[in-house]
Amino acid sequence: MEILNAARNEFSGKGYDASSLRAIARLDEVDPEIVHHYFDGKAALFAEAMSIPVNPLFLIDAVLAGPRERVGERLAATFFDIWDSAQGRERLVALIRSAVSHEDAARMLREFLAREVFGKVALSMEVPQPHLRAGMAASQMIGLAMMRYVIGFEPVVQASAEEIVALVAPTLQRYLADDLVGDLTVG
Amino acid sequence: MEILNAARNEFSGKGYDASSLRAIARLDEVDPEIVHHYFDGKAALFAEAMSIPVNPLFLIDAVLAGPRERVGERLAATFFDIWDSAQGRERLVALIRSAVSHEDAARMLREFLAREVFGKVALSMEVPQPHLRAGMAASQMIGLAMMRYVIGFEPVVQASAEEIVALVAPTLQRYLADDLVGDLTVG
Repeated sequence: MEILNAARNEFSGKGYDASSLRAIARLDEVDPEIVHHYFDGKAALFAEAMSIPVNPLFLIDAVLAGPRERVGERLAATFFDIWDSAQGRERLVALIRSAVSHEDAARMLREFLAREVFGKVALSMEVPQPHLRAGMAASQMIGLAMMRYVIGFEPVVQASAEEIVALVAPTLQRYLADDLVGDLTVG
Repeated sequence: MEILNAARNEFSGKGYDASSLRAIARLDEVDPEIVHHYFDGKAALFAEAMSIPVNPLFLIDAVLAGPRERVGERLAATFFDIWDSAQGRERLVALIRSAVSHEDAARMLREFLAREVFGKVALSMEVPQPHLRAGMAASQMIGLAMMRYVIGFEPVVQASAEEIVALVAPTLQRYLADDLVGDLTVG
């Protein structure tokens, strides 16, 4: 069995969190050291197996490199750089389609988003309720992906990436890095 | 042909904008007056035909009734009232699944959202770029629907509707009613 197939089987069978490089190596009957040699950890192997066009570690590094008060802007800009490319767009749409129709795919996606992407950014901000914040930021980005690439809502399709980034940056900034206490004391 | 079937055929064939009560009546071989008698306009017939559990006119009335500075909160609260009910949730998930897999359904949904739901709220705020604002607000709500009901991202699933409303209200408020000029002058 080829390693990427083994990885896909492991991730879709057990979800992202419960999968391990060791188990994937065993499925492919190779030495775990070899898997480690070719893939820079579980996140990178997942990205490769799922045809996600970027190593999540680089993505998170790009988002976290820079002043805290612009983390929302960097997050949005990094995503749209990838998504607006022909390859990125196609893979994103495929990922959403499969998460919407298969529970296995939904589980992999939510665990991956929570653990490696939005969760990592939210945790590094050292704010209360990082997981809920990660979910709110992810909801805004997935909703934009739906409107721009899947449902095709005209004004969102025709806006430039720069316009969308400018509109969404304060939203992500608030979810990920700002004080939410005032908002959370609801009547 | 029964009137709701006729409506579904018309809407999925022509999209929401190009469909008319007159043409639907003709498909069903009934007098348009009769269709008008039973359905309070195109939006109401669409909602009925698509099993949307609420008349969009009532929804918009509820959102617009009250102070402008809390329109985001009322919009979020109105949606989660519907979506968190068992019937609302089931129909919402069906609507998203079908929009993600069929272009006809995607077109109906985007035209309906633009014309009757988010578009109406944004237009009534008398702000610049109402259509792009409607798209941004819709993206946030669709993304939350994805995370809470389709993908099942735990922290967003487990939060109460009140918590989610409090978190998302300032986002919707900004998209729909606030000054965006500062945000739109990007470097």
